[in-house]
Amino acid sequence: MPFEPTDYLPYDFANRRHIGPSPDEMADMLEVVGADSLGALIDETVPKSIRQEKPLDFGKPKSERELLWHMRQVAKKNEVLTTLIGQGYHGTVTPPAIQRNILENPAWYTAYTPYQPEISQGRLEALLNYQTMVADLTGLEIANASLLDEATAAAEAMTMAQRVAKSKAKAFFIDENCHPQNIAVMRTRAEPLGIEVIVGAPEEMDAAQVFGAVFQYPGTYGHVRDFTPQMDAMHEAGAIGIVIADPMALCVLKEPGAMGADIAVGSTQRFGVPMGYGGPHAAYMACRDAYKRAMPGRLVGVSVDSHGNRAYRLALQTREQHIRREKATSNVCTAQALLAVMASMYAVFHGPKGLKAIAQRIHRKTVRLARGLEEAGFEIEPADGFFDTITVEVGLFQRGVLQAAVKEGVNLRRVGKTKVGITFDEATRPAIIEAVWRAFGIHRKDEDLDPEYRLPDALVRTSDYLTHDVFHMNRAETEMMRYMRRLADRDLALDRAMIPLGSCTMKLNAAAEMMPISWPEFSNMHPFAPVDQARGYAEMVQDLSEKLCVITGYDGMSMQPNSGAQGEYAGLLTIAAYHRARGEGHRNICLIPVSAHGTNPASAQMVGWKVVPVKSAENGDIDLEDFRAKAEQHAENLAGCMITYPSTHGVFEETVKDVCKITHDHGGQVYIDGANLNAMVGLSRPGDLGGDVSHLNLHKTFAIPHGGGGPGMGPIGVKAHLEPYLPGHPETGGAEGPVSAAPYGSASILAISWAYVLLMGGEGMTQATRVAILNANYIAKRLEGAYDVLYKGPTGRVAHECIIDTRPFAESAGVTVDDIAKRLIDCGFHAPTMSWPVAGTLMVEPTESETKAELDRFCDAMLAIREEIRAIEEGRMDPENNALKNAPHTMEDLVRDWDRPYSREQGCFPPGAFRVDKYWPPVNRVDNAWGDRHLVCTCPPMSDYAEAAE
Amino acid sequence: MPFEPTDYLPYDFANRRHIGPSPDEMADMLEVVGADSLGALIDETVPKSIRQEKPLDFGKPKSERELLWHMRQVAKKNEVLTTLIGQGYHGTVTPPAIQRNILENPAWYTAYTPYQPEISQGRLEALLNYQTMVADLTGLEIANASLLDEATAAAEAMTMAQRVAKSKAKAFFIDENCHPQNIAVMRTRAEPLGIEVIVGAPEEMDAAQVFGAVFQYPGTYGHVRDFTPQMDAMHEAGAIGIVIADPMALCVLKEPGAMGADIAVGSTQRFGVPMGYGGPHAAYMACRDAYKRAMPGRLVGVSVDSHGNRAYRLALQTREQHIRREKATSNVCTAQALLAVMASMYAVFHGPKGLKAIAQRIHRKTVRLARGLEEAGFEIEPADGFFDTITVEVGLFQRGVLQAAVKEGVNLRRVGKTKVGITFDEATRPAIIEAVWRAFGIHRKDEDLDPEYRLPDALVRTSDYLTHDVFHMNRAETEMMRYMRRLADRDLALDRAMIPLGSCTMKLNAAAEMMPISWPEFSNMHPFAPVDQARGYAEMVQDLSEKLCVITGYDGMSMQPNSGAQGEYAGLLTIAAYHRARGEGHRNICLIPVSAHGTNPASAQMVGWKVVPVKSAENGDIDLEDFRAKAEQHAENLAGCMITYPSTHGVFEETVKDVCKITHDHGGQVYIDGANLNAMVGLSRPGDLGGDVSHLNLHKTFAIPHGGGGPGMGPIGVKAHLEPYLPGHPETGGAEGPVSAAPYGSASILAISWAYVLLMGGEGMTQATRVAILNANYIAKRLEGAYDVLYKGPTGRVAHECIIDTRPFAESAGVTVDDIAKRLIDCGFHAPTMSWPVAGTLMVEPTESETKAELDRFCDAMLAIREEIRAIEEGRMDPENNALKNAPHTMEDLVRDWDRPYSREQGCFPPGAFRVDKYWPPVNRVDNAWGDRHLVCTCPPMSDYAEAAE
Repeated sequence: MPFEPTDYLPYDFANRRHIGPSPDEMADMLEVVGADSLGALIDETVPKSIRQEKPLDFGKPKSERELLWHMRQVAKKNEVLTTLIGQGYHGTVTPPAIQRNILENPAWYTAYTPYQPEISQGRLEALLNYQTMVADLTGLEIANASLLDEATAAAEAMTMAQRVAKSKAKAFFIDENCHPQNIAVMRTRAEPLGIEVIVGAPEEMDAAQVFGAVFQYPGTYGHVRDFTPQMDAMHEAGAIGIVIADPMALCVLKEPGAMGADIAVGSTQRFGVPMGYGGPHAAYMACRDAYKRAMPGRLVGVSVDSHGNRAYRLALQTREQHIRREKATSNVCTAQALLAVMASMYAVFHGPKGLKAIAQRIHRKTVRLARGLEEAGFEIEPADGFFDTITVEVGLFQRGVLQAAVKEGVNLRRVGKTKVGITFDEATRPAIIEAVWRAFGIHRKDEDLDPEYRLPDALVRTSDYLTHDVFHMNRAETEMMRYMRRLADRDLALDRAMIPLGSCTMKLNAAAEMMPISWPEFSNMHPFAPVDQARGYAEMVQDLSEKLCVITGYDGMSMQPNSGAQGEYAGLLTIAAYHRARGEGHRNICLIPVSAHGTNPASAQMVGWKVVPVKSAENGDIDLEDFRAKAEQHAENLAGCMITYPSTHGVFEETVKDVCKITHDHGGQVYIDGANLNAMVGLSRPGDLGGDVSHLNLHKTFAIPHGGGGPGMGPIGVKAHLEPYLPGHPETGGAEGPVSAAPYGSASILAISWAYVLLMGGEGMTQATRVAILNANYIAKRLEGAYDVLYKGPTGRVAHECIIDTRPFAESAGVTVDDIAKRLIDCGFHAPTMSWPVAGTLMVEPTESETKAELDRFCDAMLAIREEIRAIEEGRMDPENNALKNAPHTMEDLVRDWDRPYSREQGCFPPGAFRVDKYWPPVNRVDNAWGDRHLVCTCPPMSDYAEAAE
Repeated sequence: MPFEPTDYLPYDFANRRHIGPSPDEMADMLEVVGADSLGALIDETVPKSIRQEKPLDFGKPKSERELLWHMRQVAKKNEVLTTLIGQGYHGTVTPPAIQRNILENPAWYTAYTPYQPEISQGRLEALLNYQTMVADLTGLEIANASLLDEATAAAEAMTMAQRVAKSKAKAFFIDENCHPQNIAVMRTRAEPLGIEVIVGAPEEMDAAQVFGAVFQYPGTYGHVRDFTPQMDAMHEAGAIGIVIADPMALCVLKEPGAMGADIAVGSTQRFGVPMGYGGPHAAYMACRDAYKRAMPGRLVGVSVDSHGNRAYRLALQTREQHIRREKATSNVCTAQALLAVMASMYAVFHGPKGLKAIAQRIHRKTVRLARGLEEAGFEIEPADGFFDTITVEVGLFQRGVLQAAVKEGVNLRRVGKTKVGITFDEATRPAIIEAVWRAFGIHRKDEDLDPEYRLPDALVRTSDYLTHDVFHMNRAETEMMRYMRRLADRDLALDRAMIPLGSCTMKLNAAAEMMPISWPEFSNMHPFAPVDQARGYAEMVQDLSEKLCVITGYDGMSMQPNSGAQGEYAGLLTIAAYHRARGEGHRNICLIPVSAHGTNPASAQMVGWKVVPVKSAENGDIDLEDFRAKAEQHAENLAGCMITYPSTHGVFEETVKDVCKITHDHGGQVYIDGANLNAMVGLSRPGDLGGDVSHLNLHKTFAIPHGGGGPGMGPIGVKAHLEPYLPGHPETGGAEGPVSAAPYGSASILAISWAYVLLMGGEGMTQATRVAILNANYIAKRLEGAYDVLYKGPTGRVAHECIIDTRPFAESAGVTVDDIAKRLIDCGFHAPTMSWPVAGTLMVEPTESETKAELDRFCDAMLAIREEIRAIEEGRMDPENNALKNAPHTMEDLVRDWDRPYSREQGCFPPGAFRVDKYWPPVNRVDNAWGDRHLVCTCPPMSDYAEAAE
């Protein structure tokens, strides 16, 4: 009997696992949208003029098993030595319970940014713990919920200092003891903003000359200095003092707040977050209360819900690029939420006693190391006091010592031409002390004598920290595991429901894609380890870059930017450098359509450009005439334009090539924002359309999970003429300055995107794009009649997302977009993107990963909501006391007496809501205004909880 | 400044992570229980006479980081080749989403056996899927929820056949094509039961001579035979036909049911469960409807809850050792739930089309392999048809071929003296086909020609399978992930609340202990791989055995039994062999106290012994006089006794040494059941008390999670004189027969217990024992006055568990132990062990891992329940319509109209219940009797659901 042919390929990842709708479902959906085939739908939707010529082809895609096997081979090419280079990256011990229950738990890593507080109370609590931890350790009043990395945090602190300083000086002082990458990133940032940077020894700082100054604590060579005199002098001069402080050191060292610092920044990497060849890790920023409204990044605060119960939410919504747009000086719009959660849990796990014990042990081991060297006659620096880092003068033996150390399995730091640096961490074993000694020719046994601190007495910390109850809870793993589970259960993430966030592409983060990031070969690499030890990373970066170039139509790729906004900034810097190199450094006008992401003008601002807004036409497209007029008007100084494709309105504009041509014709360069690349992969390439630069949101299109608000990765692709001007890095070279602390940004999560690309293959990714478009059109079609869909293409199709107009209901029924968003929580959904790009609307992006059943569940919910609105419109329902206004409903509502004009059943189980598996938000609607009026951004004392309970 | 001394060791796993109460909490608890110190409490509780002399000392325990590093080194000593030995173990592809979301998810692996159905609906559904899958694939009406392994399942089938056969013949026929370990385990089982085993070719079977016969399908050498003639003959003779069938083969081969088989068994390992050097995997058993009440193991069935909604629960409670005790012929009381869930999810992931495609591919690759060999002139067997296995005659070259294969990275099977066996699986890559050819000296390229099936035409499957909707759901990972999350969320496991199950020791399963089992070096080893490739396993088994010997006071250890009951059986077999060897094979009397675990008499029965029950004294202790009298009475034939220490009443009986001495004095051997070892480790050793054998429940005392009802591991420790009689194995030798399919049972999970022992160290484990005792005494004390605690020691202390007497409330208030157990669900708890060892009582075992806060939450709940009972007693509450009788309350109760004499608040949020984090059972109280009257043990058709919804 011959084999029956089977067309069913069980290990076809793209079509069986990643793409949501099954072939049968797709057929049904195509019928609903009225297209003959998927190909026909795409032909109607994506203009022929912009289609790419060749299909994507990366050969046969890998099965999940093949992928994991292949990645293990590549991982093995990374040689993981004990790396004592320090410089802001340290060995750490990730508690396995945190690794398993947070880093490897989809409930945490698939969550979105907590903009909808009612369904985000778990991670908001974890982030509030983080802020409390940072505020306590730094001795400052307020801390944000994390920034991208220490170097960019320092740059943010610099520009923040400029905003808040009374001093009108133009210069900024940088302690020469800062880590080189911190200095470099601040220089990069300062230059286009016209900030003069002065680098020198702390005692050389002249407060009268500067609006601010930054000092590293401990210094990059190990020095531990009291910056109180500098702070005093600066305050006198109206300048702002910044300290970059290692939070581990702050467990035993006097806190920056006590020195008088106004702002503190630093990295919380060594609180249990693996080095990952540079990231992702959470950087922190803390400041005095007076400056809180100038602080960039997200801030979690405490407020109340509609029943007066305590509820957390993002405070002040300080994403200033939204508020200030053309006047913004920061484009920060993400954080490192997942890593901040990990670091905060590390602090909860250890508590103040545990952290202090860990910090003391690190210091103690360093003291032993130093003593051994000193007794052998070596001169160590700093002799007068250090925490975890010492520098040793070795004269002509630098290379010899470094090589001997490598033979011992240890990387030390090359400092200058004659010195070697050594930084210890909590993972440093006694055997490593002996190995380091041997690298110096010293053969002795390590003994844990009872040494004295070698911290300067005046700098030994005397104040308490982590006094809040959460840091004193029972630390048994049983309790910790349950705490993490409880927090996770309060949130609604992608592991339970579609998150149809327009412009955010919440697609599947497959388990196979996530697994390699936990492997020690990827997670334990120091970013500045010798490159010959990181061949696995090199291969991954190289291959992923090449494939992304093919996908986008660019010639070169920089993996350095670790968020989309960072990518924009890096891309514009690249353009600016290109203009400068051609003697056209005066070009400083950037055309940006009014519909652009708020980060676009902010990024332009950051490279010192002036933003000229371009109008939208009636149909939402770029007003080509206005664009042409503005380009002509500014031809002399035109630096470039920033456009998004397909547009932020979810439409493939036919005129995109014209826009590019006009820009080029007037001497400008074209930046195509890659936020919507999920609608293009395999169909169209920004590089072919005329783009010179694009950033790619790997956390949107290429399957990196959102982590509850970070990490992200925003590499940029450029045409060949821009390649020489891509960001460089002090460790890896390059003419231009760096934009991130590490050469490859958050390198470890590149593994996720690489896995995605290898699993999907060219045709798989193309099919994903097609289905993303099908899914969006299916929703648009199903909601037709009930809601207006704004902005369609000429054939009546939308791209991969659609904007639902909810504005008319404000007048007809007093129902706002907020009411609808909160009502969707009752239906078991995260709301679509609200009021962006058009105020009062909802932008829906289902992605290709959602199945027809889930799309239908969403559409059913939306249609039912429309009927609820109609009941108000027709006077059948009370306009104030109705299920929309009272949404979301909680279990508490069910328990309470129910005196509403609709039933418990109608209130709590609208169409879409699961029955047995119902998601209950832990709080009712959160009052944002109340929280901003009563700003509390650290954990409230338990007495408050007691009061609230009464 | 000198370092301040710190007593806080942040990486002290035992005291900071594993043990629940913090030192401060312990101080408070000791005050409550009225003990001066923990040491004093232990002195009061554990009689001096039984204390061990030397403290446990295994040197410095490892930190979690050190442990993982160490285990990685050991893991690397396992050399993982591609192993094509087959023989019941196969390469497989575990879908990463299943690995991450089930195997590595505490919500699944920390769950208990679903005896409380209301809080187990998720895993009951998954297990029902499993049963449906097995019933469909085998073509039989009913399947159980898994057995331990294929070989023991075959042995169970044999004894079941004896129970149900009309034929009174004494012999049992075994197909010589069965895997050797299956034959060996059946022989072991048959011998003491007096079953005569006849092994021969299928066509030699004489139905008139036997009560049953078993055939392997496909046979161990690859033959695929139609057993219809044999089945027909047996039915004529009133005998029972059994087929051991590979479920993967059944995707393309005619099902046993269609051949007329009465029972089918087999292993579902290759449905996505890694080989793990032998286990754990789920074996299945299916049978004709007529025999369902004789089937051993657990059976999930469909019933209704108190509102008439569909609800799953364990049907028939066929743990027959409970029902038949002294007359039982099976001691099965566990399953491989976690692995059955994985296998069922694999089937859901692939659906019938996917499974068929996978099976076809396996066959197709085997056909290619065979053709290549045949074209090179080799003679392959079976020539007339095979599925995945062929045997090749190689004459004198057997060793050469096997060695050449190893050089190619492949293990083949040694068959007889001149043959080589090859079994393919879904993980076999084309390169492997070529490698195998090369081992035979054939150099050719693999081509995927369009071959014909080489299955016998008559045996190609024509019937459908997996027709239920669950196997046809959308298989995108997004949907699958959410399905697994929804099921997990319906259940209450250790990751959310204490599971205070007396005698089950539900302690922490730490993340660090669980991680190594996912490593390929442990998970991908074939149990019959050459031992020189498994040096890592050897080291682990050796070191763990030695440490367990030190802990228990025994001299030797067998890791073969893969459940506690299997351990009992293996231990008694060892004793029986010892008696036999000394010419005292007539000894067949076993003294067992009436309070014993039900498995004890069942196990004794299985080795052909007669059970003589011994009375309990008033205080619950063994009645020493009765014991002595029985021992004297049966002195001539006394085989031994089985006792549990501390007793199943939770008391350290002072007379244990007397009991042992009496037994020894009368020629018997002492079996000490290790179920309660968690109260002894570090304080007392069964081997010192006089025990000759004990089994250890590694899934109780040594941190293997319960997995929702398995896996377990029950190794036995023996004194030196018994070592020669420990179970052997056809693959590894030994005089005695095996009790399990694999030499080291479920070897891969030994890694968990090894990790536990290494992390805890001797003192840490001893402290855990002390705290387990403290926790139990704390509960006993807090409940004093409200409930009577049955059975205390002479000083008024309990051991590590306590029995709460709830019997008086039946009369005083009509409240049963069931009512209390269900009410505890409302409080957010899994009920304690119900009605065992004393009917109508609750046995509470908190373990050392629970914190004071959780113990208090439980006590508060229990005290509040007592008050609810009092309200009924005092006539303040309706005796029929009250919160106890209506428990558990569901969300549906809240939504419905509420006409009860207590409030929604009182009903749903009794003391103990979390507020925001409330656990809601998905169903109301399940009606067990209804389900047993309307037995349905496969997924009901969707039409039924539709009806129910109406």
